[in-house]
Amino acid sequence: MRLSRSHPRYASLRLRAHLADLTRAGLVAPEGLIAHGRGETFDYLLGERTSPSARAAERRAAGWLRSARHPVLSVNGNVAALAATEVARMAHACPGLSVEVNLFHRTPARARAVAGVLRAAGVSEVLGIRPTARIPGLPSDRALVDRRGILVADLCLVPLEDGDRTQALRALGKKVVSIDLNPLSRTSQTADLPIVDELRRALSHIGDDLEGGGPPERTGRFVRFDRRRALADALGLIGRNLRRAAAVRSRSAGERGRASPRPARGTGGRSRRTP
Amino acid sequence: MRLSRSHPRYASLRLRAHLADLTRAGLVAPEGLIAHGRGETFDYLLGERTSPSARAAERRAAGWLRSARHPVLSVNGNVAALAATEVARMAHACPGLSVEVNLFHRTPARARAVAGVLRAAGVSEVLGIRPTARIPGLPSDRALVDRRGILVADLCLVPLEDGDRTQALRALGKKVVSIDLNPLSRTSQTADLPIVDELRRALSHIGDDLEGGGPPERTGRFVRFDRRRALADALGLIGRNLRRAAAVRSRSAGERGRASPRPARGTGGRSRRTP
Repeated sequence: MRLSRSHPRYASLRLRAHLADLTRAGLVAPEGLIAHGRGETFDYLLGERTSPSARAAERRAAGWLRSARHPVLSVNGNVAALAATEVARMAHACPGLSVEVNLFHRTPARARAVAGVLRAAGVSEVLGIRPTARIPGLPSDRALVDRRGILVADLCLVPLEDGDRTQALRALGKKVVSIDLNPLSRTSQTADLPIVDELRRALSHIGDDLEGGGPPERTGRFVRFDRRRALADALGLIGRNLRRAAAVRSRSAGERGRASPRPARGTGGRSRRTP
Repeated sequence: MRLSRSHPRYASLRLRAHLADLTRAGLVAPEGLIAHGRGETFDYLLGERTSPSARAAERRAAGWLRSARHPVLSVNGNVAALAATEVARMAHACPGLSVEVNLFHRTPARARAVAGVLRAAGVSEVLGIRPTARIPGLPSDRALVDRRGILVADLCLVPLEDGDRTQALRALGKKVVSIDLNPLSRTSQTADLPIVDELRRALSHIGDDLEGGGPPERTGRFVRFDRRRALADALGLIGRNLRRAAAVRSRSAGERGRASPRPARGTGGRSRRTP
């Protein structure tokens, strides 16, 4: 389908078409498209921009990445499809940060495809293509990791991660930084530092902070982060946006007898400035 | 991936796997998976059950279907994949109700696949496989309809419909009943009778009401429905559920130092009784 640049949801529709293409190409799992849709709705409800609270979490995450002795950035199909450039930029900006392929729906072909996209974007070393270890407490393929990467990491940055795996990493005593638009998800609820923001915005901001900071210190000590406050901030923002949207809709319905000022598209669609 | 029946999200995960399979088979468009994910989040926020307000809307929709002179039920790939049985049941329970294939991402193969699924479920006549008319104001394929169906309908029931098309149908003077989990979507905001409920629950309830009612009256007159109230009810319910979830999370975090009582899975995941 041709997309018109004038469409108020052009960027969002283009991204959907991009992910759909990469699903046909085998990089993104079909289940990854469903997960993207879930995230779209939360981003819509959060206003499709980084909140001050999320920005503070991103700054703290950059600090943690510079303090960790062995930080690992975990990459799945959706992350590679959406943000390979941002991942490569972070790897350059943070010497010692490992990048590991970590797939929920793992096939050797998809692992190679993810690694290929990362290398093409400029990541020089990609771990996890052929897993060499397992983390306890997880079934089958979902436990597979690299013994040079996640297995020995003290800090894992897990964008768009599954709740079971986040909990398993925590149970191993690792510090977990998550990027997940759903503040109620098990991943957000379990992570030590939950970032409730859209993937590319979050990684870009962390990249800015890493480039702006000095060289990593690798002390293994992490400055405290108030995770409960961060999650409460996100829920509060969604609540305020919903009330505002309801008020706008009922006002325009009252004025015109019928609400229609470019609200959202289809299930979960949204206007440019939302909600 | 094998799914454990004991998983709290078993039904939801199974449905995702089903839709992913049907995407590989060409029935569901990849973009349909993203739309399903958006809907999942809204269903989660609505509590994953039919609200009293939505149930009232479904009853009124059954009444409208019995009053319409020429009602049409529009079916796309997601609707066929999720609810072919419910569609067939409605067609039997409501003599005179036409069923029309109506695709956003139309290909002849997908149109045939949707029709095949509907016939296999027991729908005797399926319109729209080879479209014979266009509705004005829409680009290319998205305008294609059947001249025996949507073109001449006085009432269109459009589950999981696109906002542009809903508006185009309204502009033609047709009554539109929508089924869409997003109360802020352009479809919900534009429909004469927006049902904010999950597809299968909504169609099952309407089927119940049709089977419980007498024969259709076909008067062409429609009992008034308070659409603004219905949408405000849905937004209010989401707001209350969010506040409750925030309170539960902060209570359990306070008691145990860490929130984790089976909240949601990954981006947009959810617990059995949600949120």
